[in-house]
This record gives sequence, C-alpha cells and structure tokens, in this order.
Amino acid sequence: MGIHTYFQSLNDLERIIRCPGKFKFQEHSVSAHSWKVVQYAKTLADIEESNGVAVDWKKLYEITSSHDYGEIFIGDIKTPVKHYSLELRAMLQQVEEGMVAHFIDENIPEEFKAIFRRQLREGKDDTVEGLILEVADKLDQIYEAFGELQRGNAEKEFVIMYRTALIKIKGIKLHCVDYFLDRILPDMVSEGSKSPIDIARITDEALSSVEAHSQK
Amino acid sequence: MGIHTYFQSLNDLERIIRCPGKFKFQEHSVSAHSWKVVQYAKTLADIEESNGVAVDWKKLYEITSSHDYGEIFIGDIKTPVKHYSLELRAMLQQVEEGMVAHFIDENIPEEFKAIFRRQLREGKDDTVEGLILEVADKLDQIYEAFGELQRGNAEKEFVIMYRTALIKIKGIKLHCVDYFLDRILPDMVSEGSKSPIDIARITDEALSSVEAHSQK
Amino acid sequence: MGIHTYFQSLNDLERIIRCPGKFKFQEHSVSAHSWKVVQYAKTLADIEESNGVAVDWKKLYEITSSHDYGEIFIGDIKTPVKHYSLELRAMLQQVEEGMVAHFIDENIPEEFKAIFRRQLREGKDDTVEGLILEVADKLDQIYEAFGELQRGNAEKEFVIMYRTALIKIKGIKLHCVDYFLDRILPDMVSEGSKSPIDIARITDEALSSVEAHSQK
Amino acid sequence: MGIHTYFQSLNDLERIIRCPGKFKFQEHSVSAHSWKVVQYAKTLADIEESNGVAVDWKKLYEITSSHDYGEIFIGDIKTPVKHYSLELRAMLQQVEEGMVAHFIDENIPEEFKAIFRRQLREGKDDTVEGLILEVADKLDQIYEAFGELQRGNAEKEFVIMYRTALIKIKGIKLHCVDYFLDRILPDMVSEGSKSPIDIARITDEALSSVEAHSQK
Amino acid sequence: MGIHTYFQSLNDLERIIRCPGKFKFQEHSVSAHSWKVVQYAKTLADIEESNGVAVDWKKLYEITSSHDYGEIFIGDIKTPVKHYSLELRAMLQQVEEGMVAHFIDENIPEEFKAIFRRQLREGKDDTVEGLILEVADKLDQIYEAFGELQRGNAEKEFVIMYRTALIKIKGIKLHCVDYFLDRILPDMVSEGSKSPIDIARITDEALSSVEAHSQK
Amino acid sequence: MGIHTYFQSLNDLERIIRCPGKFKFQEHSVSAHSWKVVQYAKTLADIEESNGVAVDWKKLYEITSSHDYGEIFIGDIKTPVKHYSLELRAMLQQVEEGMVAHFIDENIPEEFKAIFRRQLREGKDDTVEGLILEVADKLDQIYEAFGELQRGNAEKEFVIMYRTALIKIKGIKLHCVDYFLDRILPDMVSEGSKSPIDIARITDEALSSVEAHSQK
Repeated sequence: MGIHTYFQSLNDLERIIRCPGKFKFQEHSVSAHSWKVVQYAKTLADIEESNGVAVDWKKLYEITSSHDYGEIFIGDIKTPVKHYSLELRAMLQQVEEGMVAHFIDENIPEEFKAIFRRQLREGKDDTVEGLILEVADKLDQIYEAFGELQRGNAEKEFVIMYRTALIKIKGIKLHCVDYFLDRILPDMVSEGSKSPIDIARITDEALSSVEAHSQK
Repeated sequence: MGIHTYFQSLNDLERIIRCPGKFKFQEHSVSAHSWKVVQYAKTLADIEESNGVAVDWKKLYEITSSHDYGEIFIGDIKTPVKHYSLELRAMLQQVEEGMVAHFIDENIPEEFKAIFRRQLREGKDDTVEGLILEVADKLDQIYEAFGELQRGNAEKEFVIMYRTALIKIKGIKLHCVDYFLDRILPDMVSEGSKSPIDIARITDEALSSVEAHSQK
Repeated sequence: MGIHTYFQSLNDLERIIRCPGKFKFQEHSVSAHSWKVVQYAKTLADIEESNGVAVDWKKLYEITSSHDYGEIFIGDIKTPVKHYSLELRAMLQQVEEGMVAHFIDENIPEEFKAIFRRQLREGKDDTVEGLILEVADKLDQIYEAFGELQRGNAEKEFVIMYRTALIKIKGIKLHCVDYFLDRILPDMVSEGSKSPIDIARITDEALSSVEAHSQK
Repeated sequence: MGIHTYFQSLNDLERIIRCPGKFKFQEHSVSAHSWKVVQYAKTLADIEESNGVAVDWKKLYEITSSHDYGEIFIGDIKTPVKHYSLELRAMLQQVEEGMVAHFIDENIPEEFKAIFRRQLREGKDDTVEGLILEVADKLDQIYEAFGELQRGNAEKEFVIMYRTALIKIKGIKLHCVDYFLDRILPDMVSEGSKSPIDIARITDEALSSVEAHSQK
Repeated sequence: MGIHTYFQSLNDLERIIRCPGKFKFQEHSVSAHSWKVVQYAKTLADIEESNGVAVDWKKLYEITSSHDYGEIFIGDIKTPVKHYSLELRAMLQQVEEGMVAHFIDENIPEEFKAIFRRQLREGKDDTVEGLILEVADKLDQIYEAFGELQRGNAEKEFVIMYRTALIKIKGIKLHCVDYFLDRILPDMVSEGSKSPIDIARITDEALSSVEAHSQK
Repeated sequence: MGIHTYFQSLNDLERIIRCPGKFKFQEHSVSAHSWKVVQYAKTLADIEESNGVAVDWKKLYEITSSHDYGEIFIGDIKTPVKHYSLELRAMLQQVEEGMVAHFIDENIPEEFKAIFRRQLREGKDDTVEGLILEVADKLDQIYEAFGELQRGNAEKEFVIMYRTALIKIKGIKLHCVDYFLDRILPDMVSEGSKSPIDIARITDEALSSVEAHSQK
C-alpha cells in the first residue's frame, strides 16, 4: 500500500545474487549491478552527446535505474533458460510484466500509476536511450566475467558470458560502442594479460565473429 | 564428458540459495535442502512400512536424492513464477527436462544413460514413493518457513510458504501424513509458541482450510 | 589510464559496507545504497514535477548516481567522525575532493575531464536537484535504520540515525518532503508497529523536535 | 521430544563447516557433504549392480544419508586428531555413539527407537553397502581437495587429503573403484592440468603408493 | 620452518568459528575470542592490583594471548564432548599438547624452543594469573551467550553456556570476581531486561546454585 | 555505564573489516588483527630480552592489546587518507583521542579512569615497547599483504602495503628487526616463490630503498 511498499521492496534486490550456482571470486547483487549500469550509461550518453547526438536524460534515468526491478518478482533467471526458446523467453517476460503490473495496481497511488507503468516497462527499445541501456547492461556482464577471467576462474560460463556480451555490443550502432571497442576494451585486455586465461584471444575471436547480426 | 562432469556439477547446488531476495535469518542451499528431503523421506517411509505399506527403497533413494538436480540448469525459480500459470509451469518443466536430457546425452557414458534418465526424471508421481517425495519436499518448506517465523521474521512470504505447504501435505493420503499432523506438527507449534508471530493460529487456519482438494 | 580504470573502480564500492562495527541484521554496500538513492530521487523528482516544479534530469542523474563515488578513496567514515567538528568535516571533504581530482587528472582522457569534474563534484547544493539528493540520501538512512528497528535491533546508533535523518529531511522545503511526511512515513510507522522498539514514539519525537533549523 | 526434535536438528549440520581453519576457495557444510555422498553412492551402487552385485538399497540409503549425523554432537573433528592414536579414535567414536544413543533415548518415540538405532549406527562395515559408503565418503574428500588444488590453493592439507583418500579408495575391492580409477579419475586429472599445482604427479604418486594395505 | 611458520599459522584461527552448528546472530572466530580474553584479563588484573595483589604481567601476557593456540591443530571441539568424561578430556588435552610439542620441535629454532614450550603450555593453573585466565575465558563465554540471549536467540545451548560459565566464575576466589559479580554483571542483566528471554532469572538461578564447588 | 559498556564494546571490532573496498582472498577484522599484533609483539619482545634488552611487559601488554581500540569510534580509515597531509592526520588522531576520552569520562568508574586513560593512549612512542608495537603493527600489514600476493591478488594496494610496511620496519633499530629481516623474511619470500607475483623482487626493492629515513 503506497510508495512505502515500493521503496521498501528495493532492499530485496540486494539479496538476489547474479549468476547463481557457478564458482566466482566476486558476488554481485542485482542492486549493485543496477547501479553500475546507471553509471556506465551516464558515461556512454556523455560520449553520444559529445558526438552531437541528443539524449533524453529523463528517459535514460528511468529505464536504466529500473531495468531489473522485475527481478524482485521472478529472481535472476539463468541466461541459458531465458534463451532456451523464443517462446519461453516471451512467456517469462510476460509473467514479469504481469507481476509488475499487478504490483503497481495494488500498491502505487492513482496519481503515480501512469508514471510507474512507464518507468517499469521494458526499456530496451530502438531509441538511443534504449540502445544505451542495452550496451550498459551487457557492459556489466563483460566486467563481471572479466573480473573472474582476470583472476583465473576457469568456469566456462564466464567465457561464454564475456564473449556473448561482446558480440552483442559490437552489433549495436552507437558512437559509444566505437569508443568502447577502440579506447576502453584495449585497456581491459591489457590489464588482463597476466591472467592464466588468454583473454586477448577470447576477445579477438568474439570481435571477429560474424554471429552479431543473427543474434537478438 | 563422463561421470566426472556429473560428480563435479553437484558442487554448484551448494551455491544456489533457496528463496532469493527475501530477508531471512537462515540461508539454505539447494544441496542442504536435498539432503534434508532425503532424511525426511527415509523416516516417512519407515512410518509407511510400520503401517504395512511396501516401499521400493531403490526408487525412493533415486527420486529423493536427485529431485532438484535440474536446478543446476535453471536455478531456484521463485514459486510464484512457477505457479503463475499452468502453461508457464509446464514450459519451465519442459525446459528443465530438456536441459537435463541434453546434459545426459553429452556427458553420461552410453551404458549409464538409461539409469540417469530414470533417476533424473520428475519423481513426484502417484506411487507411494512419489507421494513421499512430495510430502518430504513440502516438509522442508514448512521447516524453512518455521525457522523464520519462530525467530520473528515478519516477511509475508514465509507465512505463505508455511501455509501452502501445510495445505498441500494435508491433502495427501499417506499414513506418514497422519503421523506428521498428529505427532510432529503439535511439537513444532508448541516450540514456536514463544514467537511474536502467532504460529498456532496460522497452523489452525491452514489445517481447517478447504483449498486442499482444489490445489495441484 | 582511461575510462576503463574508472569503470573497473566501481566494483570497489560493492565491498565497502556502510555503518561498520555495529551489529545489524542487514548489511548494505555503498553501491546498493547509491542505487537506492537514485531510485528514491527519481520518485521524489516525479512528485516535484507533478507539483509544477521544473527538474533538470541530467543534473539529477549525475549528482545522485555519483554522490558517494569519493568513498572509493576515503571509505565509509563514521558519521560521528564527520560531524565531530566543522573543521574536520571540511578537511575530510577537501581530502576526498583532492583525491577525486587527482584520480580524474591521472585517468580520465582530456576530452572528458570537464564532464567528470562536474559529475563527481559535491552535489548537495541549494537547487531543487541538490535538495532532492539530500532528501534521497537521508531517506536511505531512514530505511536502513528502520530495517533494523523493525527487527528489534536495539543498537542506539540506529535510533540516532533514524531520528537525525528525519529531522534533517523535515527541515527541507520541497513538495516531496511533504508527501513523504504525509503519505509514506505513516505507512512505514504502521508497518513497524509490531516491533518491540517503539518506532511511532521515536518518529513523533523527531517530528516535533525543533532542532531542524539549527542543524546543518 | 519426538521426531520433530530430530527433524529440527538436521539444520545444525548446515552450519558446521568441514575442514575448519585452513584457507579454502569453497566452503562445504556437513549437510552438503552428506548429500554428495548420497549421490556418489547411488552411482557407485549402480556400477556394482551393472556388474551383477546385489545391493541392499534400503541399507545403503540408511547408512549414506545418516553417516555424519553424529557430528551434530561432536562437530567436525579434524582428521589428524581422529587419527592421532587408535585409542583416541576409539574413544571419540564411543563418545559420538554414546551421544547419539542418548539423543534417541530422550527424543525418539518407543516404536521408532530400534529403527533409529540401526540407521544412526556406524555404517562402514565390510558389506558391499558399507564399502560403498567408505568409497563415497572418501570420494567427496577427493572432490573437496581437488576443487582447491585445481584453483591453485597451496595449503598442504589439501594435498594430504587428496592423497590419503585416493590411497584409501584404491585399497577397496569393488567394481566401482576400478571404474573410478579407470574412467573418472583420468577426466579429473585432465581437467586439473591447468592448475599451477601438479595434480597429475600427486595422483600418480598416490596410485603407486604401497601404503594402501597398511592403512585402516 | 622457523618463526615464519608460527606467525603464518595465526591466520588459521581467524577461520575457526566457535560453537559450530548452533544458530547464532553473531559468529566469533577463535582469534577474536583470544583478543577479547586478553582484554578482559588486563582489566581483571588491574582490579587485582588495585586490591594489592601482585601480578606477573609477563606470565599473564603469555598465557592469555596463547591460550587457544592449540585449536589450530584440534579445532574448536564442542564443550559437551570435552566434558563427556574426565578420561576423554584428559586424552584430548594430551593430543593437543602432543601436537603443539611436535609443532615446536619441527618449526621453532633451538634458541626459542624453551620459550615457546612455556608460552604454549596449558595456562590455567592455581596462580593468580592462571585463575585470571580462567575467569577471562569464561567471561567471554558469558558475553558470547549474552549477545545471543539479549537478541532473543532461544537455543538452549546459550542458556547452558551462560549458566555454566557464571557458576564456574563465581567459584573462583579473586577480587576481580567479586567486582564482576557486584559491578559488571548487574549492568549486563539490566541491559538484557528488554529481551524476551528472562536473563535476570537465569542469572539468579546460576548465582544461587550450589554446583560451583563440585564442578572442575 | 561501567566496565560492562567497555567489555560489550569490544565486539564491535569483530565487525570492522580492514582495508575495505579492495578485492581480497582473506578478510581480517580489527579484533583478529589486534590479537595477531599481541602475538607478534610477544615474540619480538622475547627476541629483545634474549639480546639483553629489558622489556616492561605490563606496558607492552597494555599498548599492544588496545592499540586499535579507538577504531570503534572512527572506523578503519584508509591509510592514504590518514597520510594525505600531516595536518589531517593530526586532526584525525585528535578526534579519535577526543572520542576515547569522552568514552572514558562517560563510562569508566572513577577509580579506573586513570588506568584506562593510560592504556588507551597512543602507544607508539620511542621506548622499546612503543617501537615493538610499531614493528608488530607493520608486521601484520606485511602478513596481510603477503597472504594476498602469495595467492596472486594483483591489486596494487597490497604491493604498496607490503612495501611501505617493510620500509618502515627496516628503519627501526631493534634486535628483533634484525632477526625478522635475517631469519623470518627469507622464509616468507621463499614460501611466496610460487606466486605469479614476484614477491622476491618487491622485497629486494623495498629493502634497498632509501626512503626509510625520510618517512615518519
């Protein structure tokens, strides 16, 4: 009942750990992930603006900060499950949206219902803000996986996470993607060069992959 | 490749925490839960046997010990998600079974494939062993929720978990269910009487509920 | 060197726990706190806008998301230390700013230096955005303390944190403060009524306190 | 009083961490260990059956699932202590059995006392089931140690644990031991080949050791 | 080999958690316990001195700081095990002493062997320093148990721990024991008066108990 | 009020983690650190005594065991902050001392006030005991950093911590420093030789550095 219920619920995302099951050196909560996505997106949008692209900051604020709120209701469902079939993925998204809609109906005061519906919608559309969110979200998967590979974690899941996110990002046409590939990624690969895992090779293979266009 | 991959994978269930997101005094991993289900089922089956019911111990062993193995692939999906619609539930079960089948195809040697397919199937059928597994699995939800209610954890989720599991159990026709309701549950309620939460009232309401027959 | 160093550094805030030393039921990292401040501020700004106040969303985005970034360098210094003397507080803020400035000089590429300097400045000024940040930051102290008081944590530090933050908020002239006091706080107090700690009384005392104006 | 006390007590084994004191990348609770022993034993027994050996599944179920229940009373006593002298070892086992017997006397209803005494007895006898339990228990020490060696943990304790368990297993005459040595262990060693620790050499030395027969 | 091995080994006591198995709000490592015993003993000795008793500070330093070092070798064996029989207790102490002696033989340079043998001996003799160590060690059990009782932890083990330690202390003839009973304990009981557990009653029962003289 | 408040407060140091923010394989609480400093200091003082130096054991006991008690009030402030300017450092020390003095005024009974003021003073003066405390405190930084470097933790902060502490120690004129450099450090470096980080080189560079005299 009321905004209090919403504010109170934010705490739950501190207790949902991403990528459950696999051995990892660093655990990340959904709320810490969400904050990092907000931070990346801000810098990515700065890069767009410095290239003359107009950014709707209010929209970017709304969609980045809330993009995983729905996990309060469905948890951090493993990526392979989400991607098992387009049909399942659609159904899971429908369930998440249904639960969020139900939460708004039950808890949010009439005068804010429209605002919350807009904010808690799926934000990854084809606008520049939606694309920045997509890049920022994948960027955190890259940093999450990199943090493991860098420390020698040999779980295949992190190689796949790193590789898949990189392929996804490189397929998005934004100035900030060029900047990331040209100016940020080389520093990351260089920092990872002391790892027993060959991060440079994994990176090169992902960058030269042609899967980018066929992936959703 | 090989049984090693299977044995090695068991570790992952130590890192999947049940009921993610909600505040709790005690965390339970899927592997600890699995062990407790094995233990409860053993005593429940002893009660059945002492009432003259024949128990297939090999089958009971197989289905109780492996009943959550599939969570390695799909994680601990929140109960409300699983129960959101019969359609989604069926699809999630299908995905889990598909992933388990794929794992067996890829990793288990030819001569053990049939055994693993039988062991890692969904065990909750209408045989006495399948029903015992159902009771044991719900019993652990009861103990998990009780451990929180007893310590004053006011999260609604644990009241619902306790109540739903109790209603489910009471609808199953087994001697061990009678024993649980008559001889075990009163001790539990009595132990919980010092809690600020009125466990006796929640228990009575669940036991007098008529939802039992309409629930699956 | 480069934006990579900045992105990489964000991880460190997941490992700084707020309010070190005191017994608590829930631990909060600085990054989880930062995300919650971003979320509260968004809704607080929505309330301002619905009252006809213009909000600079880009500025609000920048100052809320980065407001505790400096803790990477100085850690979460205990509030009583910060408030021990105005002189020490000023000096600590100067050190933090010096370290942030040094980090930008060393790591941020020339073309982004001005942007980072603006974003990582102290954001709590007298503009509507600065005041919203102040309210949102204190709101999270209220929720942090409430989560402990609600569960019966008798550490005096959380009573002080709750009380001080409430007094601070009530002294700020914003529509969202009125909304919080009239519509959100009563729900919180009502939810806390089962606690052995008398949250309603602590709240009433804070609200009727006259310290608000004399405090900075 | 009653089965409830027994069911409730199972939780305690989730809070006893194996191999206390030594640095490790992964912690294992006694309950997670117990579940893995149940799982290994099931597959080991399948291998025996496929070689024409009759397995008493009820007995195997009972002795594997409960084999460390006594640690609730005495904790996870360090292996070197247990093996310090035959006299101490016998006395510790006597204490554990005395405490288990006392627990059954006090808590288990008359009609189940005999069943619990049988289930909670020391299960490692010379029957095929007792030997399978011994292999499964040592197998988990191997996996526990392997998980550390594989990640470069240089604590000597894990080399000793791996080596001692391997020597113990190889001295047991079971088809499943042959299968483990021929078909599972090579995969494990191969997976561990990227570790800075020479797992292959440690394995070879253990396998060619002649201590097996002199050890109990 | 050498003092390095000894210094390095101290880390292990940070990873041995006291009172394993039981639910607790606060975990305590053996090293944190050791430090608190050192601190209590210092104040207890100050009280003795202020009553004209001569204290050998070097001896007190040696025996308090090292009193649980042997747990590196045998772990934190549960109190009920230690007290199961005088015979077992003697044997466990013998094993611990044997392992410590072996460690000194192997690792400590010749010129320090005598010093280490003296420091790592059992310090609880009938001298004033030995008695202060006994009081300080039990005092930490009281604080450990009090921290649980105060927060409503209903595990019987903590009532027993509190009660047994109090009875033990009150039987020791030292000025600091009088001071503790007259001046410190009442403040503790008063602080605990808000707990749902009746700490005052448990305290009174322990203080009026006549077991003190029959206990060792 | 009273010694109880002081004894109770010791618990808080178990919950303050040293070196917050940076990734580490092992976390150390302030209380575990304090205990290790007590232990090192004991052996360092033994070395002094064996070289004919008189040691005031009571003073050494007091200053080593309490040397970080003030962190209860100010937390574990990051070393770079403390060293940012001599002015800030002086002010922070003044605040800590002020808070300790206030605590003693409020809580410690009249007859012990003088004792507590002496014990909780800054102990690092130029007496042999003050210098031993300085060496012991830095020695724990060396072990803390070594534990990370040894396991391949590439965070620069630990190289700096190791190096700075070593330079500081080598500048102190004590027999135990000679012993450490000649007899303990070589064993440590030798144990660390398997690390991917070149600990020997870092050590050599620190030992041949000439910064020692210019540093405070």
